[in-house]
Amino acid sequence: MEEILTLLEQNKLSELKEILLDENPIDIAEAFEEFPKEKCLIIFKILPKDLSSEVFSYLSPEKQQEVIENITDEEIRYIMDEMYLDDTVDFIEEMPANIVDKILKNTSHDKRKLINQILKYPDTSAGSVMTVEYISFKGTLTVKQAIEYYRQVAIDREETDICFVTDNKRKLVGWISLKTLILSNDDSLIENEMETNIISVQTRDDQEEIASLFRKYDITTMPVVDNEDRLVGVITVDDIVDVIDQENTEDFQKMAAMNPSDQEYLKESVFSLARHRIVWLLILMVSATFTGLIIKKYEDTLQTAVILAIFIPMLMDTGGNAGAQSSTLIIRGIALEEIEFSDILKVIWKEFRVSLIVGTILSSFNFIRLYFFEKIGMDISIVVCASLFATIIMAKVIGGVLPLIAKSLKIDPAIMASPLITTIVDTAALIVYFKLSVMFLNI
Amino acid sequence: MEEILTLLEQNKLSELKEILLDENPIDIAEAFEEFPKEKCLIIFKILPKDLSSEVFSYLSPEKQQEVIENITDEEIRYIMDEMYLDDTVDFIEEMPANIVDKILKNTSHDKRKLINQILKYPDTSAGSVMTVEYISFKGTLTVKQAIEYYRQVAIDREETDICFVTDNKRKLVGWISLKTLILSNDDSLIENEMETNIISVQTRDDQEEIASLFRKYDITTMPVVDNEDRLVGVITVDDIVDVIDQENTEDFQKMAAMNPSDQEYLKESVFSLARHRIVWLLILMVSATFTGLIIKKYEDTLQTAVILAIFIPMLMDTGGNAGAQSSTLIIRGIALEEIEFSDILKVIWKEFRVSLIVGTILSSFNFIRLYFFEKIGMDISIVVCASLFATIIMAKVIGGVLPLIAKSLKIDPAIMASPLITTIVDTAALIVYFKLSVMFLNI
Repeated sequence: MEEILTLLEQNKLSELKEILLDENPIDIAEAFEEFPKEKCLIIFKILPKDLSSEVFSYLSPEKQQEVIENITDEEIRYIMDEMYLDDTVDFIEEMPANIVDKILKNTSHDKRKLINQILKYPDTSAGSVMTVEYISFKGTLTVKQAIEYYRQVAIDREETDICFVTDNKRKLVGWISLKTLILSNDDSLIENEMETNIISVQTRDDQEEIASLFRKYDITTMPVVDNEDRLVGVITVDDIVDVIDQENTEDFQKMAAMNPSDQEYLKESVFSLARHRIVWLLILMVSATFTGLIIKKYEDTLQTAVILAIFIPMLMDTGGNAGAQSSTLIIRGIALEEIEFSDILKVIWKEFRVSLIVGTILSSFNFIRLYFFEKIGMDISIVVCASLFATIIMAKVIGGVLPLIAKSLKIDPAIMASPLITTIVDTAALIVYFKLSVMFLNI
Repeated sequence: MEEILTLLEQNKLSELKEILLDENPIDIAEAFEEFPKEKCLIIFKILPKDLSSEVFSYLSPEKQQEVIENITDEEIRYIMDEMYLDDTVDFIEEMPANIVDKILKNTSHDKRKLINQILKYPDTSAGSVMTVEYISFKGTLTVKQAIEYYRQVAIDREETDICFVTDNKRKLVGWISLKTLILSNDDSLIENEMETNIISVQTRDDQEEIASLFRKYDITTMPVVDNEDRLVGVITVDDIVDVIDQENTEDFQKMAAMNPSDQEYLKESVFSLARHRIVWLLILMVSATFTGLIIKKYEDTLQTAVILAIFIPMLMDTGGNAGAQSSTLIIRGIALEEIEFSDILKVIWKEFRVSLIVGTILSSFNFIRLYFFEKIGMDISIVVCASLFATIIMAKVIGGVLPLIAKSLKIDPAIMASPLITTIVDTAALIVYFKLSVMFLNI
């Protein structure tokens, strides 16, 4: 990068071009993000056309907009011609209206039609993730003819080693890998060489389900069909890696009580960040006041033995943490399709036993600390530790069960994570704590 | 599945075989998990040999062990011959010693040597994830010769569309896709057609770094080289999808204060689950006692105005949630390499502004609720809301900063998630709350 800037300042453009030709387009795009606008434009213009359009497809939307605003219509036309359709659609979705007009004006009629079609699919559906630049041929071709056909069309198509086989009505009937094509006899018919166990998705299927099919079947290219089983596009695994990252990020956000956002943190505006956070904070703040109501109910108890207040944070935090551990494991298990609602009894039984072990250890440890080291009275030590024990059992069972119940009610299990579990468990913990105090402490 | 069991009971084995031939091996393996042992063995034995070894490689370790214990040495030999090396290694790692002996006894000398070599690599390194069944040839071959060579060896090699090019010392010098091979002139030399911008990893590189290279460069097959740049294996993207899932699961576990475990929840023993959870619960429980110490210090204040206790849970919970939101976004951003330590000032400034917005809204809302609806006195309402405001600002800045500091100290940022942030923020929140109370409430 240093080198690029130096050459640029010395105006050694042909040397610079030589260096850039050896670089990976993704690395060039990354360097662009750091360079000022004018420098980017100079570099962009000295790149050979095919490399420049590849670099373009890897730029951030902000940089893409900068470039588009400063190049000629002819250059735009070239980029639009060269970019893969799925990248083009992603790019158009991020641009403001005036730029979109400029782009569509410089796109061929056929491509524009395809772009509009893909833009109509719901945001996270197969249709919006797929590309239409697949390769398909009829099963009645010979291997030799298929390879001939492949040679003619492959240059503009998505990088993948799977070709699809369709019948006269464009219905998907099979697939064949380049490996099989190369290994098969020239005169053999495609329909005799192709695989017929097809795993496909429909245009409106959600990307999360598609990701789990990729995961399960270890495939690299997934065909997308319409309602009548006609092949309309393909999804490649590199796009699915992005989907998996995106779905995981969403889960992390939901589990920390935020509305999901697909923008990078550093690029998101302060207002947008605040907006994604405020609703859940409000809901949880109001819920937390129930916990306050319990304390209010036992105000007299607390007045008599204000020492009880000392242990409230420890009980609340430990209960919250114990519940969060359980709910996190269950939420993750549901996301990876390892745990279903029908496992609910197994989960309860497992969490109950785990909580007995964990509760015993934590309470014993705590009792020793309170009674022997802090010299707290035996009665209070027992009440605190018994409350701790009961809290951990409740926390773990509630934490294990709520995500499964949410799932069965078609609510996203991820919202049953730490924040909500903590609030619920807090209330339960304080009720137990004060009830036990009143019963055993003669207050 | 119903159908399979019915045919099996009626002993219609040839019909059953017909049906199974049309099924995806992964689905057959999944059905096996539900069937009793004897049924599995019958079905396993009627499968054609190549299908049976494919099904075998997708079984769970428990089922694999059952099968291995009940088939002949000859059958084992066949499976070992057919299975891809990376699957074989995964399988061997899960088996008890006596089964491993039985397996290695029935493996060819060459394969045994390779297995032992891979087993020696650290658990999450490139060496342990890679397979050695790649295809490579010299750059001096013509395209026609390369395709000839490919035809001879491809049948036993990993499914991928990338072939590698090495020099006389086995050093990696380039790569070529099947697409390029098919599109190139028969007489052209490989070294003129191959790509030379190589992205490779070393055998000891960690799988997490490898996953981010796959992510960044959208590749499907990554070459693995030794210290001297010699090609020793390849990693394919389907294995990386598993790595990404595994790394994400680990992050979820760490962020919920658990030691990571790669076992499925339902398969993990109660003791193992308890063991992974107890250490952090203990640490956090002890840390939470600091919060208790603060309450103890202000016992007299609390005695005079026990009403103050009512708002402790709301302050603690809201502070914890506000901090968890920030730390989660930063931890995730670090994991996806979108945020680095050098962004720390940007993060502080951003979180500060977000917390001003969020803090203002939450405190105002809370003030209206307390003063107008709950009829709490003006002075207490103001103290509670001012404490809430200060808590949110501290929580968000601390939550944003600690993961970055952890990263710069080479500590896993994921531990700076909700549980630890909550404990830290709780303490800060209570100090502010009591200080403000003492200052403004005349107690």
